[in-house]
Amino acid sequence: MTVPADPRQAALAAALARRAGTVEGALDTLLPLPESTEARLAEAMRYATLGGGKRLRAFLAMETASLFGVSETCAARVAAAIEMLHAYSLVHDDLPAMDDDDLRRGKPSCHRAFDEAIAILAGDALQTRAFEVLAEADTHSDPLARCELVAGLAAAAGARGMVAGQVIDMVSEGRALEPAEVNRLQALKTGRLIQFSAESGAILGRAPAAQRHLLAAYGRDLGAAFQIADDLLDAVGTTEETGKTAGKDAAAGKATMVAVLGLDRARAHAAMLASQAAEHLTGFGPRAENLRALAEFVVTRRS
Amino acid sequence: MTVPADPRQAALAAALARRAGTVEGALDTLLPLPESTEARLAEAMRYATLGGGKRLRAFLAMETASLFGVSETCAARVAAAIEMLHAYSLVHDDLPAMDDDDLRRGKPSCHRAFDEAIAILAGDALQTRAFEVLAEADTHSDPLARCELVAGLAAAAGARGMVAGQVIDMVSEGRALEPAEVNRLQALKTGRLIQFSAESGAILGRAPAAQRHLLAAYGRDLGAAFQIADDLLDAVGTTEETGKTAGKDAAAGKATMVAVLGLDRARAHAAMLASQAAEHLTGFGPRAENLRALAEFVVTRRS
Repeated sequence: MTVPADPRQAALAAALARRAGTVEGALDTLLPLPESTEARLAEAMRYATLGGGKRLRAFLAMETASLFGVSETCAARVAAAIEMLHAYSLVHDDLPAMDDDDLRRGKPSCHRAFDEAIAILAGDALQTRAFEVLAEADTHSDPLARCELVAGLAAAAGARGMVAGQVIDMVSEGRALEPAEVNRLQALKTGRLIQFSAESGAILGRAPAAQRHLLAAYGRDLGAAFQIADDLLDAVGTTEETGKTAGKDAAAGKATMVAVLGLDRARAHAAMLASQAAEHLTGFGPRAENLRALAEFVVTRRS
Repeated sequence: MTVPADPRQAALAAALARRAGTVEGALDTLLPLPESTEARLAEAMRYATLGGGKRLRAFLAMETASLFGVSETCAARVAAAIEMLHAYSLVHDDLPAMDDDDLRRGKPSCHRAFDEAIAILAGDALQTRAFEVLAEADTHSDPLARCELVAGLAAAAGARGMVAGQVIDMVSEGRALEPAEVNRLQALKTGRLIQFSAESGAILGRAPAAQRHLLAAYGRDLGAAFQIADDLLDAVGTTEETGKTAGKDAAAGKATMVAVLGLDRARAHAAMLASQAAEHLTGFGPRAENLRALAEFVVTRRS
């Protein structure tokens, strides 16, 4: 990664790299490799989770937690749980019965590296582990905070969140959707989990409701901007740059904001959302500088 | 169902039917059917969960909770969450990449009634919903109890519990296992969740550790007895009686206690475990009568 010329972006890049290292360490600890017949399961769980990805969700969790002086150890556990949940969704999304994708983060997808049955089970167990980590006492001294984290992650991930988005995505393939429908699809499929990531720091920090809502709003707008940027990269990027099969969305007739708005309007909409995201942070002062820079970064990144 | 001649078994049969009705109502409420593009997901979740099964796990949760005077509403939520977790595991277990089973509870399995992608996602969302229900305030006024339920269910269900058992089961197919290995496989695959079901009442009732451990021990022995009885039914029952494809385990070279011990020794071992299960309940007095009768029932049932 080249160091950005803009000092704000350079500081963000350093913070992203540092946080990614921290969550990597937490994931390594939280997903131990047993010496037993079932070791292959843990190997697949680690394969799907460790060593890859931008760790955007983990960064949001840790960075928002830091606004409230939450210990990095606790924040890293929440960040790791969110990354496990995200990783499970990717493993299942890549399955032959779903998107049937052979490539993920530039490596063979989990069911290609292992097999389909192990990939299904590794995804299942990653989801379980995410909730287990959140519920354990090491995550927060107040059990009410831990319950709010479990319930919040579940609401973002389940049948009224991420999984609903995946279903709409599937049933909509090849069908023309209105921009509002695509917006709802994306908000469910990727937005809710990104929103929860940003909100989780406020839950950990026992922040007043107003601050929690502002961070959730930041996460919602940032997530929407991020998704459009991702779809723009899919439309114009190469497989080498992004580590994913390029042009796949258009080929599959996927409903994206790029497909319904076109490149230019999609780009403008993402920029508007990113600036709106940053505005929610006005009251948080200089400690939120990385989060503001992130809003800018998600719509300007190249991979 | 014919009414058993033994009055203890008749009382148990009535209690089983009543509890099954209660948990069915709770599941119906906790898995609403939305009017939206993603309704098919909720339909599949309801299809996989409602209207079937012995509800053994739900019964254990509700019956152990009643030992401590826990409200039936709270206990039914925990019972429903455990049944959702169990249902998710069956949906994924039946997938073509796993056991590839077309029949479940006498109906087409979820991926046959819907499709593979929906079955994967419905299983995923059922797991999520199970944890969500446990974490919500309606389940218990004390958030620590809710955290213990989430962590306990996760430990029973995840990579050191049920899913580990499924992996061992898969990698062991066609390979000769020692009785101890089969025992560990079954304890993980089905035992841990049944054990947790029995333990959950003590968690809800904020029971002293000694009582919680006794109920866990009861659940562990009962679960082991239940599994052997289930394998005996598979070996000697018919498809019509059990609602599952009969003789499937032997055909697939599955590692069961029946396979390693033979019919007679397996039957004797199950009876020993059932009587051991009942002994853990000695200190619980007449309120535990249904749980004692259940230990007898699981090894004498015909379907």
